[in-house]
Amino acid sequence: MHDTNKYFVGIDGGGSKCSAMLFDDHGKMLGQGIGGAANASRDYASTLLSIVESVQQALYDARLSQSLLSKLHVSAGLAGACVPNVNAQLKAWKHPFANFRVTSDLMTACYGAHGGGDGAILIIGTGSAAAKMQNNTLTQFGGHGFLLGDKGSGAWFGRAAVSSTLEALDTLIPMTQLHRMVLEQLDVCDTAQLVQRMIGASTNEFAALAPGVILLARQGDANALALVREGVRYLDALCSRTLHNTALSLVLMGGLASSIEPWFSPALREKITLPLAGPEWGAMHLLQDPELTQY
Amino acid sequence: MHDTNKYFVGIDGGGSKCSAMLFDDHGKMLGQGIGGAANASRDYASTLLSIVESVQQALYDARLSQSLLSKLHVSAGLAGACVPNVNAQLKAWKHPFANFRVTSDLMTACYGAHGGGDGAILIIGTGSAAAKMQNNTLTQFGGHGFLLGDKGSGAWFGRAAVSSTLEALDTLIPMTQLHRMVLEQLDVCDTAQLVQRMIGASTNEFAALAPGVILLARQGDANALALVREGVRYLDALCSRTLHNTALSLVLMGGLASSIEPWFSPALREKITLPLAGPEWGAMHLLQDPELTQY
Repeated sequence: MHDTNKYFVGIDGGGSKCSAMLFDDHGKMLGQGIGGAANASRDYASTLLSIVESVQQALYDARLSQSLLSKLHVSAGLAGACVPNVNAQLKAWKHPFANFRVTSDLMTACYGAHGGGDGAILIIGTGSAAAKMQNNTLTQFGGHGFLLGDKGSGAWFGRAAVSSTLEALDTLIPMTQLHRMVLEQLDVCDTAQLVQRMIGASTNEFAALAPGVILLARQGDANALALVREGVRYLDALCSRTLHNTALSLVLMGGLASSIEPWFSPALREKITLPLAGPEWGAMHLLQDPELTQY
Repeated sequence: MHDTNKYFVGIDGGGSKCSAMLFDDHGKMLGQGIGGAANASRDYASTLLSIVESVQQALYDARLSQSLLSKLHVSAGLAGACVPNVNAQLKAWKHPFANFRVTSDLMTACYGAHGGGDGAILIIGTGSAAAKMQNNTLTQFGGHGFLLGDKGSGAWFGRAAVSSTLEALDTLIPMTQLHRMVLEQLDVCDTAQLVQRMIGASTNEFAALAPGVILLARQGDANALALVREGVRYLDALCSRTLHNTALSLVLMGGLASSIEPWFSPALREKITLPLAGPEWGAMHLLQDPELTQY
């Protein structure tokens, strides 16, 4: 009977959504659920709601009773979970589960991508960050958030495209297709409208401009090309630093990974492999792995 | 008797403070007051409080009764006042004065700097922006805020210095004196502490790092030099665009103006003059000037 079994949940939480996978004690996936945004340092309160929501959906998807919530062993990798005061809050959370362990989304993504073995990852999504797992230790590079870092990420490309468009509207630089794309996609036509539209925009809204920037760079737009080259130069350096003096392979992740990959140096592209498992699997196994008790 | 006279107040409101000057109907300055931050697009509610606070202080400073508040003719130049929805809100404000007119802080600063005549200004403070007044029309360049623009401003230098420090801590670039200055001034010693300290920092907190960046650039620190050159290249282009096809003189304003001025091109430095009056004077006269009724 199901109710006497142990159930495990692995969670992957980031700026755009929270994904939960429910596993039985043989590691079989029973159900999945998706909740709202779960960047713990950006919006702590809704992160907790998104976690519970995604787990409840996973129970529902597995056709299991919601009353099992309090019996679940939950492990989450969350964006922002390693900011010290956020981490302390998360660890003190009066969660509704049997137990709840949390670490960074990079940790669970890297652990999953290499099937629990050593390896490195580069995430290029709304944000950007790299990490390597070696000797049961995760080392992170980059990934310092939209305001201070995350160069080469979707949100960074979007913001840089908007800033460039404002310079073109100020006639400081010539207006190119990049700027027309920004104005059209945001449905604005002048400086005041553009500032008003984007001054309070979310990182997801900025990141929505990134695919257009990369496409226009491929088509030779000078401004788009300059932005992509600047972003890729940073990401390439970030990966080189992450892989420095190792023989690790690199897994690329995130919505922009496939469109950025062709821009990397041949030396870097040789190190790239496909992921063995997802971050939810990584979170679930990390919870059970006795060698990783420090997290 | 004072109570039968007309009183005028000119206000200059920005991200760090709100300054009010009280004048009699001969243009004589009777008193001054300082209130809190007054960036209308960033924090609307406290902007209104800061305005009232600064005017009350100016009445107090002039040894006039607070009951005169409702008889005052108040004119304010406020940061963010030209963002369309903010402007509409400000114009609908149920203010406690006899009347209240508002325009951008750039407008009143430019009007004041050139004593009501034509001219241009460049503000390099917490933010950056340029403007010219010609044919009773103000044209603004740059000044799109911390997130999207304001290149070469104090907050921009501060954020760029923090980002560079994070890259040095990631060992993507060599650590120089610039990075040690940032860590020391912010009293942090690693990536996690630096991110936690600055992720929610105000533009003023970022701008507090700028004088150190400019000083180190003068001393030859390679990273500081690169930041100052990038910022100055933008500001120089912004001024060239502002002065393009005019014979206007340029007034520099803001806390970083004097330390940035030596970096400008000789051609630009030739156009620089000293201000004739302050932005409070500019705001007060703007209210009375019949030729400027469009504002």
